[in-house]
Amino acid sequence: MIVVMAQAATEADVQGVVERVRELGCEAHLSQGQEATIIGVIGDQRRLRESVFEAMDGVAQVVRILKPYKLAGRGFHPRDTVVSLNGIAIGAERVVIMAGPCAVESREQLWETADAVRAQGIGVLRAGVFKPRTSPYSFQGLGREGLELLAEIRAETGMTVVTELMAPEQVDLVAEHVDILQIGTRNMQNYNLLHAVGESGKPVLLKRGMMSTMEELLMSAEYVLSHGNEDVMLCERGIRTFERATRNTLDISAVPVLKELTHLPVLVDPSHACGNWRWVSSLALAAVAAGADGLLVEVHPQPEMALSDGEQSLRPDRFAELVQRVKAVAAAVGREV
Amino acid sequence: MIVVMAQAATEADVQGVVERVRELGCEAHLSQGQEATIIGVIGDQRRLRESVFEAMDGVAQVVRILKPYKLAGRGFHPRDTVVSLNGIAIGAERVVIMAGPCAVESREQLWETADAVRAQGIGVLRAGVFKPRTSPYSFQGLGREGLELLAEIRAETGMTVVTELMAPEQVDLVAEHVDILQIGTRNMQNYNLLHAVGESGKPVLLKRGMMSTMEELLMSAEYVLSHGNEDVMLCERGIRTFERATRNTLDISAVPVLKELTHLPVLVDPSHACGNWRWVSSLALAAVAAGADGLLVEVHPQPEMALSDGEQSLRPDRFAELVQRVKAVAAAVGREV
Amino acid sequence: MIVVMAQAATEADVQGVVERVRELGCEAHLSQGQEATIIGVIGDQRRLRESVFEAMDGVAQVVRILKPYKLAGRGFHPRDTVVSLNGIAIGAERVVIMAGPCAVESREQLWETADAVRAQGIGVLRAGVFKPRTSPYSFQGLGREGLELLAEIRAETGMTVVTELMAPEQVDLVAEHVDILQIGTRNMQNYNLLHAVGESGKPVLLKRGMMSTMEELLMSAEYVLSHGNEDVMLCERGIRTFERATRNTLDISAVPVLKELTHLPVLVDPSHACGNWRWVSSLALAAVAAGADGLLVEVHPQPEMALSDGEQSLRPDRFAELVQRVKAVAAAVGREV
Amino acid sequence: MIVVMAQAATEADVQGVVERVRELGCEAHLSQGQEATIIGVIGDQRRLRESVFEAMDGVAQVVRILKPYKLAGRGFHPRDTVVSLNGIAIGAERVVIMAGPCAVESREQLWETADAVRAQGIGVLRAGVFKPRTSPYSFQGLGREGLELLAEIRAETGMTVVTELMAPEQVDLVAEHVDILQIGTRNMQNYNLLHAVGESGKPVLLKRGMMSTMEELLMSAEYVLSHGNEDVMLCERGIRTFERATRNTLDISAVPVLKELTHLPVLVDPSHACGNWRWVSSLALAAVAAGADGLLVEVHPQPEMALSDGEQSLRPDRFAELVQRVKAVAAAVGREV
Repeated sequence: MIVVMAQAATEADVQGVVERVRELGCEAHLSQGQEATIIGVIGDQRRLRESVFEAMDGVAQVVRILKPYKLAGRGFHPRDTVVSLNGIAIGAERVVIMAGPCAVESREQLWETADAVRAQGIGVLRAGVFKPRTSPYSFQGLGREGLELLAEIRAETGMTVVTELMAPEQVDLVAEHVDILQIGTRNMQNYNLLHAVGESGKPVLLKRGMMSTMEELLMSAEYVLSHGNEDVMLCERGIRTFERATRNTLDISAVPVLKELTHLPVLVDPSHACGNWRWVSSLALAAVAAGADGLLVEVHPQPEMALSDGEQSLRPDRFAELVQRVKAVAAAVGREV
Repeated sequence: MIVVMAQAATEADVQGVVERVRELGCEAHLSQGQEATIIGVIGDQRRLRESVFEAMDGVAQVVRILKPYKLAGRGFHPRDTVVSLNGIAIGAERVVIMAGPCAVESREQLWETADAVRAQGIGVLRAGVFKPRTSPYSFQGLGREGLELLAEIRAETGMTVVTELMAPEQVDLVAEHVDILQIGTRNMQNYNLLHAVGESGKPVLLKRGMMSTMEELLMSAEYVLSHGNEDVMLCERGIRTFERATRNTLDISAVPVLKELTHLPVLVDPSHACGNWRWVSSLALAAVAAGADGLLVEVHPQPEMALSDGEQSLRPDRFAELVQRVKAVAAAVGREV
Repeated sequence: MIVVMAQAATEADVQGVVERVRELGCEAHLSQGQEATIIGVIGDQRRLRESVFEAMDGVAQVVRILKPYKLAGRGFHPRDTVVSLNGIAIGAERVVIMAGPCAVESREQLWETADAVRAQGIGVLRAGVFKPRTSPYSFQGLGREGLELLAEIRAETGMTVVTELMAPEQVDLVAEHVDILQIGTRNMQNYNLLHAVGESGKPVLLKRGMMSTMEELLMSAEYVLSHGNEDVMLCERGIRTFERATRNTLDISAVPVLKELTHLPVLVDPSHACGNWRWVSSLALAAVAAGADGLLVEVHPQPEMALSDGEQSLRPDRFAELVQRVKAVAAAVGREV
Repeated sequence: MIVVMAQAATEADVQGVVERVRELGCEAHLSQGQEATIIGVIGDQRRLRESVFEAMDGVAQVVRILKPYKLAGRGFHPRDTVVSLNGIAIGAERVVIMAGPCAVESREQLWETADAVRAQGIGVLRAGVFKPRTSPYSFQGLGREGLELLAEIRAETGMTVVTELMAPEQVDLVAEHVDILQIGTRNMQNYNLLHAVGESGKPVLLKRGMMSTMEELLMSAEYVLSHGNEDVMLCERGIRTFERATRNTLDISAVPVLKELTHLPVLVDPSHACGNWRWVSSLALAAVAAGADGLLVEVHPQPEMALSDGEQSLRPDRFAELVQRVKAVAAAVGREV
């Protein structure tokens, strides 16, 4: 950390910062330039409050040098993390597709979708049973009944199953029924929930908050990792910007940037990013070309009858076409599906 | 709700929408114009999924006419809600100031701050004990010990006390110790938590998500209201934009817009909005001039020693000055502090 | 256009709107629903001021049905526009790469870059001579001298040359020296300039404003088209968002969305989008996978000595690698470079 | 400027940067810390390209210490600039209100508005004759005819007149007819225009780009100042964010932040910020409470008949009320209107 003093800072201001650095158990390295005095802070800074010096007299700017995360960073863990379960390796050569309906609506709908997904050789089913809905009057998901349907699919087909959970008290129940715990965009900074899934030992699919920076995403991953769970996957799903032609703005740059900053697998959800099935395929191909380790794609047997997100769900025939096109692009960048 | 059909829509597409409207228990009112066919949907639409028609063939656009919230809106409840407790009325003539440290750090620090706040005639103390911190390595708050300190202040001084909570399982404990439950910006769409505080019966201070629209804020208020709790206060605290000179961008327009849309009291938190004590006073005055019903202001006896948010906390002498200035502006717009 | 009246609107309010519609030369189609009265406006609406009804008593909402652009839209011109010059076809099967340095710095630098670009079989050189710099103290470009160097390259190599211009009075001079006129992100809404290049008859490369919507981009294209110039190419180059890990946020969704809305070719500039050469290649591949008709890539023989944008420029060897990778992805989506 | 080297930087990388610093005419001050080597750059840095070091091997981060503007900053010019003309002082004790219609539409409309404005004791008339319209089919302003009407008002009433111009070639003509040249939000980075108004010697009202940071606004002011024109006024008019309840988001924090960074007067345009006359008054009061030196307010005798921006224009009676309320708040913060 570097503390840059204002040009108008007095000798006493500089001394104040130096003493504060020492009180905090670090060393201060003073460098008096022509235009500014700079104080380097040396020692264990991850516990240092970012703002501790900003409130002091004479301080112009505080610059972090070390990343605020450690376990999530490449510095600590240079090699790619591969999350392995049920014979699937996420973060390795294969691009992993996870597909399914926004919400479990009924046994028929779920089975029909699962069959359509399996028919394309895709082994991971993703479907929601606890739905975070903006309106208290909207369908909130089937809850426990939906979990049981997911477990039934899992047992009978051997598919790997992913579902979202929303509160710490749901962790045990959900972990019994599915393989991967999803943290949704609105809960990326629900720290009690991150703590709880960290302790669960189950693989976690952490979606980026629609309002969160990549650094904040990595800090949320750090919460999970720091509670002993190494199986964390990140998912870019679109951020909120001024543009409204699409539901969100897919931050495709997050793929190469995150792959550089972290060893964790990086997936992309093109469905929520654009909010319209007509554009999902283009974004899916872009994600794979950019280096994504996997995709989350919404599929529904009858999108126009879906209880949520129908407009962004692919019909089975369109999903089949997407898988073929993804395979071609994956091959072009040296990967397989 | 109005469904606008694409120019290329076929007769069958139009019929499809009309039938779907009827299946959903509503009536369809068809209007064939020169450039577009428009289908008005008549009936109870608050339960209609916003996207139910967007996925259908031939649909160009779906326009909501009714607001998606009901209990929170002026239509349902034209007169201002006044939240009354301990002889304080929030949402009435007086501008209510809530002040205190970002976090409870120790008995001494809390008492010192409480005394400084009371010395200005301010009766509401706000301080955090469960802190949502971006980093798992930062100070996470004193938890239960902090609650006891808050209860001590409340008992001995009669001050009204506000604190944030982060998970449904904390509701009972927190409700025992303080007067107002705060939902923080990162939890504005933590629906399980909204449900839980809705059932608690305690007054709720709901902060706007830093990247949530005003409509989403009202939908979150609707969650609390729809679980039987009428004592909801809204708080604008800055939104995330491209500008980085300030920590967030105070959306001052939210004050008149929310006052028009809802009957709930609207407060402003200038401290988190700008992130720097030097600008807090200007923003506080602006908020009151714009019509805010109250302010949340961070005060710390020694900001440079604060365990969090020191750079945006006012020293007691500066807080005293702010209160005087706020009184003058409040008087100019026909209110008192 | 649909005018939705407020529930509280009086009969006189409705009549007021109907009369205003007629005064403006359109017809009003009234539809009295249970929850709202809706007035359809029929006639030539492109000249109607969007806000003309919003200021009237009793009006709740005004909804546009027709797109505000005409010449740029697929409705008017369903088939893809192909911009053809010097044997190159932009907007057809081939993905066109335009490459070169941010700024022309010297004859040596320009020739060295042009040779490196040509060596990869790329025939379009893009380089700036009038530089829009945030600071008046930064290098502003070589101006006329730079234009002569570009013309020299064009004459001696047969390369197609693109450069940016910033003011209407530069149009004639620039049009004499180069093949394609670029409008930069800061001038997307410089209407006098759009008017001038519209009249020039030269192909125009119109970059999206960094905080402009896709619709605004199409409206700016409409300015050029409406002044008689049909050779307009659009370029997505990143938009400004809250994320700062990258210089801008590449809005990759703009590729499929624009391809659907307009017949004009859509290019992508991955260099300005991310601002760092390490990520340029990933974004270039993503753009091609998503369906872009071309790429703008910054190349510099010695990026660390560049007078501007060195950090996002590719060295010739890295550019050569990018071209190979782009070819593979283009083939995977059925195109060539 | 401080160059922070990556932990993995080699000795040769460090030497490379040091040599580059010297080549650029500056001195390098090396500081080898435990976690990073830091190179302080000493000398005239305003001409240093921000990115010159970022492209070099081994560089992790480049931190600016000096502000990139000079003439616009308080460091160079600590005392407030007061723009004085026609007996009006902008940037001094009085809060200056500039009011008028979005566009000059006719002699009658302009005189009626001017009379309504003067009736409140307001001496500055603002009205557009060159209108930057998103659509080429919208009313583009009366041009020269409008300028003559403005000059007529000026001559007969003694009012000070402000109007926007859009291209360098308009400067002489506009400067003959009015007192203050306005640069609109879409032209804040039209550098040729900034250069031209800089040389005109006329007072300039520079509106913040809707997509521009405060620092960029100050850099644009620097362009005008560096061409010899000291009479620059800044105007915050709302920025573009994700929120759509208002036309733009008024960045009220810009008032105290800009007043701290620069000596130039800071005005606020509440009309464009919110886009709806019902909220203009609240925002105007907020601006004055926050410390703004002036206001730009749209007034129209018949907003529902306005050719542009009618929905955000105040009728004369509402403007009269606004002036009274602004006077009260101005008095509460120690100023007058």
